[in-house]
Amino acid sequence: MKVTVIGLGLIGGSMAITLRKSGLATELFGVDQNEANAKKAIDLNLIDHVLPVHDVLPQSDLVLISIPVNATAALLPSVLENVNEQAVVIDVGSTKNLICKSVSHHPRRKQFVAAHPIAGTEFSGPSAAFDGLFENKTNIICEREKSSPAALSKALNIFEALKMKTIFMDPVEHDKHVAYVSHLSHVSSFLLGQTVLDIEKDEKNIFDLAGSGFASTVRLAKSSPDMWAPIFEQNSEYLSQALAEYIMHLQKFQYHLMKKDGLELHKIMTKANAIKHVLNKENKS
Amino acid sequence: MKVTVIGLGLIGGSMAITLRKSGLATELFGVDQNEANAKKAIDLNLIDHVLPVHDVLPQSDLVLISIPVNATAALLPSVLENVNEQAVVIDVGSTKNLICKSVSHHPRRKQFVAAHPIAGTEFSGPSAAFDGLFENKTNIICEREKSSPAALSKALNIFEALKMKTIFMDPVEHDKHVAYVSHLSHVSSFLLGQTVLDIEKDEKNIFDLAGSGFASTVRLAKSSPDMWAPIFEQNSEYLSQALAEYIMHLQKFQYHLMKKDGLELHKIMTKANAIKHVLNKENKS
Repeated sequence: MKVTVIGLGLIGGSMAITLRKSGLATELFGVDQNEANAKKAIDLNLIDHVLPVHDVLPQSDLVLISIPVNATAALLPSVLENVNEQAVVIDVGSTKNLICKSVSHHPRRKQFVAAHPIAGTEFSGPSAAFDGLFENKTNIICEREKSSPAALSKALNIFEALKMKTIFMDPVEHDKHVAYVSHLSHVSSFLLGQTVLDIEKDEKNIFDLAGSGFASTVRLAKSSPDMWAPIFEQNSEYLSQALAEYIMHLQKFQYHLMKKDGLELHKIMTKANAIKHVLNKENKS
Repeated sequence: MKVTVIGLGLIGGSMAITLRKSGLATELFGVDQNEANAKKAIDLNLIDHVLPVHDVLPQSDLVLISIPVNATAALLPSVLENVNEQAVVIDVGSTKNLICKSVSHHPRRKQFVAAHPIAGTEFSGPSAAFDGLFENKTNIICEREKSSPAALSKALNIFEALKMKTIFMDPVEHDKHVAYVSHLSHVSSFLLGQTVLDIEKDEKNIFDLAGSGFASTVRLAKSSPDMWAPIFEQNSEYLSQALAEYIMHLQKFQYHLMKKDGLELHKIMTKANAIKHVLNKENKS
């Protein structure tokens, strides 16, 4: 299968590696606005050729779009117009509603599969890509009924080759749930990083005093703003709700903290401890 | 050296293992209010004998206190009264000001060393203890001038055997800095866990959608409320300031989020990215 990857970063690059290894991808084309990234992807053997997007589309059996979600919504209609009639186009963006809407009345909507493989690290770019990134993780497909059975089946094969478990969701439900379970934790981490940097002007203190707990909580603050700003913009409504909820819980905690009410603090923490049963059902961490 | 460990949890237990292995501890006594923990510590060979605290003190060369910080402040004066004149007492609590104050006029203040080895995991109890927990981490000693040169030198040997780097700080400065760099990240994590549990009543959703990023950010929400409630109470003032700062940053972010101002969000995240240079100076994560 001739596979084109648009966006040669952590996600696109890692898909390329595993799809080649699995034998599903026999020839890999890459598209990237950033020439250095494209060259790096060739050097790392993630892809075989770099071509401009409109040259590569007519000859592709599968097109994977792994670029920031605003760019996906803008590019997707013209990608669908320019692929051949058997090709399947899959996007892997972390928001799904606006992307689905961008092609809801497109004559070739059936050839498109809206996906969100939930995987990533705090690193970005082609050098961050690795085989196994997706293994045992969850993939979400939205609006399965709008993809043709053939396109859906091809997509399911791809995610199976990546060793993912696929579940199906409505795009609005998807955006709402990931606001809490993924996007909010990025916000909490970015702002924790910002707060500590602001106060501890003398970086030496952070360096000396930061334990592994701080490092783990602030890990996501290293994530790429280019990727996350459009996600936050597109999921503004649900993420604002989640953030309001989070701030309310923090303020309640602060109230008991200022009163030095150890019993109430203990109660809140004991409730939060329940997260351990949720996370431990499988070793996801 | 005969070593007594009061509090046979993650920290006390891990110290026992490494001090025995290093040869510094030739005989290990354990004290724990919780009988099951004490028995477990014997079974795991963390210690040799379990004894009531006042029987064990006169025959100890070194007493390590690794219990919740409120219990430390309450117990420390009587521990100092009951040890022999050559013995050294070290506490390892995560707050230092109130603990130091609890013995500031004690006739045996010189035999005490106030320490905070910055190490831990989200697990607790004797079964969580392991050799290597402290390796390459930072230890803080407060009020070094109030410990006798002999006591200080013995303590430095201990932390060297644990392979830690020791730095010195004033107790108030200590509490202020750890509020930002350690305690705040615990609060952010506990409340993130609470928020997500509150919203995602159907735990299945959290389980399916939680990526490794969420797991990492929420890891500290599994920590022991028994240990953390007294820490938060004792460090209420500085932690409240840190939390106010954090909430302010989150609200500012929310303002730009609701306006879908991707540029401003991008700016904030780019600033927060600088945490990566701080954390990468050494591989602390």
